[in-house]
Formats: sequence, C-alpha cells, structure tokens
Amino acid sequence: MPAPTTPSAKAIYDKDRSFVFHSWSAQSSVDPLVITGADGVHVIDGDGNRLLDFSSQLVYTNIGHQHPKVVAAVAEQAHQLCTIAPAHANEARARAAELIIDIAPEGFRKVFFTNGGADAVEHAIRMARLTTGRYKTLSAFRGYHGATQQAINLTGDPRRWPSDYGSAGSVHFFAPFLYRSQFNAETDEQECERALAHLRSLIEFEGPAGFAAIILESIPGTAGIMPPPAGYLAGVRALCDEFGIVMILDEVMAGFGRTGKWLALEHFDAVPDLITFAKGVNSGYVPLGGVMISERIADEFATRAYPGGLTYSGHPLACAAAVATIETMHDEHVVDNAALIGETVLGPGLAELAERHPVIGDVRGLGVFWAIELVADRDTKEPLAPYGGSSPAMAAIASRAQRNGLLMFQNMNRFHLTPPCIVSAEETKQALAILDDALCAL
Amino acid sequence: MPAPTTPSAKAIYDKDRSFVFHSWSAQSSVDPLVITGADGVHVIDGDGNRLLDFSSQLVYTNIGHQHPKVVAAVAEQAHQLCTIAPAHANEARARAAELIIDIAPEGFRKVFFTNGGADAVEHAIRMARLTTGRYKTLSAFRGYHGATQQAINLTGDPRRWPSDYGSAGSVHFFAPFLYRSQFNAETDEQECERALAHLRSLIEFEGPAGFAAIILESIPGTAGIMPPPAGYLAGVRALCDEFGIVMILDEVMAGFGRTGKWLALEHFDAVPDLITFAKGVNSGYVPLGGVMISERIADEFATRAYPGGLTYSGHPLACAAAVATIETMHDEHVVDNAALIGETVLGPGLAELAERHPVIGDVRGLGVFWAIELVADRDTKEPLAPYGGSSPAMAAIASRAQRNGLLMFQNMNRFHLTPPCIVSAEETKQALAILDDALCAL
Repeated sequence: MPAPTTPSAKAIYDKDRSFVFHSWSAQSSVDPLVITGADGVHVIDGDGNRLLDFSSQLVYTNIGHQHPKVVAAVAEQAHQLCTIAPAHANEARARAAELIIDIAPEGFRKVFFTNGGADAVEHAIRMARLTTGRYKTLSAFRGYHGATQQAINLTGDPRRWPSDYGSAGSVHFFAPFLYRSQFNAETDEQECERALAHLRSLIEFEGPAGFAAIILESIPGTAGIMPPPAGYLAGVRALCDEFGIVMILDEVMAGFGRTGKWLALEHFDAVPDLITFAKGVNSGYVPLGGVMISERIADEFATRAYPGGLTYSGHPLACAAAVATIETMHDEHVVDNAALIGETVLGPGLAELAERHPVIGDVRGLGVFWAIELVADRDTKEPLAPYGGSSPAMAAIASRAQRNGLLMFQNMNRFHLTPPCIVSAEETKQALAILDDALCAL
Repeated sequence: MPAPTTPSAKAIYDKDRSFVFHSWSAQSSVDPLVITGADGVHVIDGDGNRLLDFSSQLVYTNIGHQHPKVVAAVAEQAHQLCTIAPAHANEARARAAELIIDIAPEGFRKVFFTNGGADAVEHAIRMARLTTGRYKTLSAFRGYHGATQQAINLTGDPRRWPSDYGSAGSVHFFAPFLYRSQFNAETDEQECERALAHLRSLIEFEGPAGFAAIILESIPGTAGIMPPPAGYLAGVRALCDEFGIVMILDEVMAGFGRTGKWLALEHFDAVPDLITFAKGVNSGYVPLGGVMISERIADEFATRAYPGGLTYSGHPLACAAAVATIETMHDEHVVDNAALIGETVLGPGLAELAERHPVIGDVRGLGVFWAIELVADRDTKEPLAPYGGSSPAMAAIASRAQRNGLLMFQNMNRFHLTPPCIVSAEETKQALAILDDALCAL
C-alpha cells in the first residue's frame, strides 16, 4: 500500500519506520498502514478512509472497536485504580475471574491471569509438567501457540523453524484436516478415526510415560480454521485419560464468541484439564490472557506452591475491560449474533463465492471464524502460495480488497474472514462483494 | 494479616479466594490484602487504611500511583483508540518508541514492544541467538529475568528450581557481591577483578564459541539490590567483545528512574547490545515491556525477517501510558528526585538504622532502590531467613510494619525499600520511623 498522503499521518508513518521494530518482518520491508481511529467493524486509515475490519486485527476485537461500554469501563477503572500487584486482592480482578469461570465448563475452578496467549500457554505447560512429573509435550502441526520459546516449540507451523533447537521435548502430530488428509481419508469419520490412530501410535512409540501434556487449539486458527470432526476431541480426551496426560485446549483465538459459542470446545464433546485464553476475553482493549484451571489441577497446587508468576497477573485495568466485555456480550447477545451471521450470511456467502470462483479450493468455518483456501488447480489442490510463503496472486487480491475498503487476515494461500462478533448482515454482504470483486480481478 | 472487616472488602476477599489463582503460592495459604484505591506513595486497603507503599507493588510504580497526567492519558487514549495490531502504525506506539530511544545509550535505534519483562527477555535471547548463530547463554546467580520457560532458565534464584529441566543451555555464574563474596575478596576492586576472572574461566571452560548471550541485571533487583563495583560491567563488555557474545542488560526493575538515573547502566561505563525493560516505562499502569535494540542488532534484521511477535506488541493504550509517564518524569524532574532522596534521606537514614540495629548486616542501594539484609549474627552473617525461605522473625517485622502503615518488598532475609521515585523526604522519614519501630520490637 502507498504511504499516507496527509502530513500528520505521514509523520506517524515516518516515526514508526524510524523507531518501531516490527514482529515477524525484515525491518527494511515493513510498510505499515497508519491507523488513526476505529469504531465497531471499521478502522480509519491515515488518509481518513474507513475500512471494513474483517481481520479483527489479529482476530481479537470480538466485541468490535471502541465499544462505548468497554471504553467507559477502562476509563473509569483508570480513574479509580490502574494497577496493583498480583499478591493483593482487587474487585476488578476477582470479578473477571468469576465471570470467566462462569463460562468455563463444569468442574473449572480458578483463573491464573497472564498478559496474553503465549504466557498463558507457558504457564499451562508448567502446571501440566508439575502435575504429572513428566516433561514431554504433544502438539499439532498446523497449530500456533505463541512466540516465547516454550510456546514456539509447541507451535506446528513455519514460525517455529528459526527458533527450533531440537524442539526440547515437543513432539508434533497431524490433527484431522480432511481437505489435505495425511491419512488418505475420504470422509470426516475416516479422518477422525485415522487421526486418532496416528496419535495413539505416536504416543505408544514415543513412550506414553514421558508425556505431560497434549495441547490443541479447539479449532486451529492462524493455520487455517479447521474445525475437527465430531468425536476427535473426545478421542483425544480418552487417550489423555488412558495415558495420564494433561489435556490443554487453547482457546486464545477461538474463544469468547468467535465460533458462535462462548468457547469453541462447546461445539464438541470433550472437557480438557486446562484452557488457555486471551484476545476475545476483553477484545484486546488492554493486554490480558490466562489459564482456566480445572479442580483437579487447582487441587494439585492447594498445598504445594505454584512456582510461576508475573508482575501484571490480574492487572486491574485489563480485568475491568474483561468484566465490561463479558457483561456486554451477555447483555447484547453478541455470541448469538456471531452464530447467526455465520449460519445465515457469511457461511452461505462464502459457499456461493466458491461456486463461482474455481480459485477457492475449500471454505471452512463457523460463527465469524472462516477461511477460504485458494488453489491454482482444484483437482491437484495446488496452493496459490507455497507452504510458509506468499505469492503475487495472493498479494494482488489482498491489495485490491484493501483499496476497496476490506481488511482480511492473510496467511500463505488463505484469507480468513474473521470480523468482530457484532458484525451486521449488511456489513458482511459488503465484505463479500468486495472479496468477490477482488477474486474476479485475479 | 486479618481479612478485612467491611462487608464490601470482605466480598472482594472472598471472591478472590474463590476464583483467582495466585502467583508463587500454595493456593490454600493465600491471604491477600484487599486494595481498593491508591494515590502517590499510598495504597488504601479494604478497611480504608492508608499504607505507605515502599514496595511500589512489585517495584514498578515509579511515578507513583494514579498520577493525574498518566491517568488522563490512558483515559484519553481509551476514548480515541484502545488497540490496533502490531503490523499497523499508530501515533502512541511510534511516539513511545521515540521517547524510549531518546533515553537509551547512543547507538540504539529501535524498540520491540512486548507485554512485560519476561517476554522482553525471551525476545532479546532470540535476537542474540539468531545474530550469533549460537545457542548457550550466561546469566548470574542472584538474578531474576521472568517466569516463562526461557526466562526462568536464565534466572539464578530458587524460583528456577521447580521448572529446571537440565537448564537447556543456561550456564550460571557468580556476579560480584562483596558482602557474601564467592572469591574471598576484601575490597570492591578485588571482588570486581576476581568476579571477572571467574566469568572468563567459565566461558573458556564451557567453550566460548557456544555462547549467544550474557544477560545481567544492570543492578540485580529481587535478589538483593547489589550495585556492581566500578569496572565490572565494562569488564563484561570486554569479554563479550573478545568472544563474540551479545551483551544484554536487563533494566526491567532498575530502569526508568529507580536508581536516580533514567537507566541504571548510566552509573557504569558499559553499553550493551540489547536492553530489556518493563515496569517503570509506564509504571505498570498498562502492561508493557520491550527490548531496546542497538544498531548492530537492528541491522541484522533489516533484510532478514525477525521470527517473533505477539498480538499486543506496541499496544496503543500501554504506549500512551508510556508517553505520558516519560514526558511527566521529564517535566517534573522525577528522576532527579529519586537521586536526591537516595543521597539525602533514604540512604543516610538506613545507614543510621544500621548503626543502632545489629540485626542489619548490610545496607545497599542508590536512588529509591535499597535493600537491608538482616542477620542473626553480624560476624558470621548468618541470615535471618534461609536461602529461598522466610522465617518467623522476618514475618513479624513485616507484619508490624504493615500494621503501622508501611508496605515493603520482602525476600528471604531482606527488606527492600523501593518507594515510587516521587516520594518526598517527609514520607521517607515516616517510613524509616516505622521500620525503626518494627526492628526495635524484634
């Protein structure tokens, strides 16, 4: 995209390029979009253009940008008490924990707060290791769990490679993904059964007594939004029980309404031991993440000290944002809206685009959590960008959509359509029309 | 401390105990102080008592609680734009980076923002590993760098032990600490020379070509506030240059005014390659940390992608708090105040207490960053609590001080007096009087 033309936005752009070191990038090729404001499903760029934010930034502004009730709660808490150390007790922190346990599965008791998803995963793994007395972990290829060292070891996509030094006890497996089946499956049932058999074999051949934890995104996010087939997570739960392994479901991206349920795991029939969360818990208005802890794991640390912590655990400002977000999502039926939009507009609309655009190889998702996978050839399923890379065709589509007012999340050969859960049918139709045009121009 | 007696505070206490999982604790023994408000150097407990906060919570509210300019900036940014993804450019983020580079040593170019100190350390280590093509690290006993897995591996105190699985390439050394010298030194000069010889030996015997980084707190914090002798950090710098090792100074606790300088490293004669920060950068009003990056390391990632990131990197609300904090600290001469209080009131006052209380074995510090080390016997230096533990005597002193209105940071056989940098002479004298009384009662 061209740099902004207004002087004030150009100054921001230049200052960013001078002083800010960007994630996941070669710094000399960074070319950021200046964003000066946002509201609801829109962001405003440096030249005053309003863009439909179907990325939800990094898939986290579930309640939309600048929801007045959450903004007011943040400002009010700022005026009352910005911060207090984790050892003390505070209203916002206690109430946020209560509301989170309220939406957790039965049998969940406590919340350990962190600053985001990566450290939530770090602490969940520590809890699993100390509970089991074991070290090794199992996690999925096409999974992402964060970029601190332990979290990146668990990650199963190319972002792990530059930081991988022998994987440190992380064993990766293939989770079910029928469109690109590892198991020559032709139906969901086959894929489920064979993926579970693969996981069992891996555990048995690696040595069951070595594994502390299995961690899985309930529905994998950045790697492609692949809802697991019915029975898969229950099968994983059964393997965990059989081999004494702690089951962790990562709800950092899929949780808090994104899939049309409070937690994505509600679509399935399995309850884990630990749940990691971040992003949607307060729509990222203030950095917050954490671990929901089942009674079994909480009891493990009733009389034995949990050896971990962080300065901003349960930060009052972040927790006040979570309280307002969760209460507002209840009051305004935001989760139901996400489900309805997925069922009636976004899902059907993407399916309709797939009928007309052969470049769409697969459409997957639910709620406001959808991926389209673009292919050069529908029969061979050759991706429109290589694994771990991009391509001029993908860049051209993204660029045309952005010029016409639509931001999407882009990864390899996929676009993800992941608007805020408050998105309207009208806004969704606008986004689909812009995407249609961008695909036509291909 | 007894639970609060007012019904509203009791409700907060009970809700905390039901739902919040606390750091570094056996959950059944958690007994938190309810805090309902704070201003300047004081916090207000659930029964309405005002306590002098000489802990600065976890040594981070450098500008004091609820500074009106920072509170206003947070509220204003909340109303304007709470959050935006790291890939985009935003005024608050760019300006915060500029102000941070302004106080960094010459030759520093860019800021990579994280959520706190632990992930700052994680990313600094990654940058060092990728820059050098090496893996192993050197860090100090009596050092703390955070509780994610990589950060806890680097930590050199008992908090590492429960999470240590072979240390994963982390080699620990003894940094200078004359009061409990590892080297039979009798002067600072001897301690410095021998500590450097020890570090050189360790590098040579471990194999110099294996080390990516040395990380050191400029002045170790939670482990006891031990300013290194003149020449030590310069000696470490020389070893890093000789062996091609990246030098990282951790300023998470010591930075942003705490020692009476913007950065603690200004007291010494060494410039590192990377500087980690958090806490004081915005006094923890919103979670924020990061890495200041020298030109040499920034250049390494000019054309090669940096393989790391996080959702809330450069969070606008956190960055707006940093901008207001740094600008206000400039305008109101907050760093100078910290220096003055240390030189004229807190340092002399603690020295005077040590003259009258034989239980004080050592007094160390500068600015508003002081430790007293309590001993059962001045000659043997037997600590009043064992390494890694507490004792009834330490608990009795802390409890009496708190009843009389003083919060201190307590660790093993030490109390740290680390008030906000805005503390007045009068408040400091009040705190010293309460401490005096608590020591008398011993």
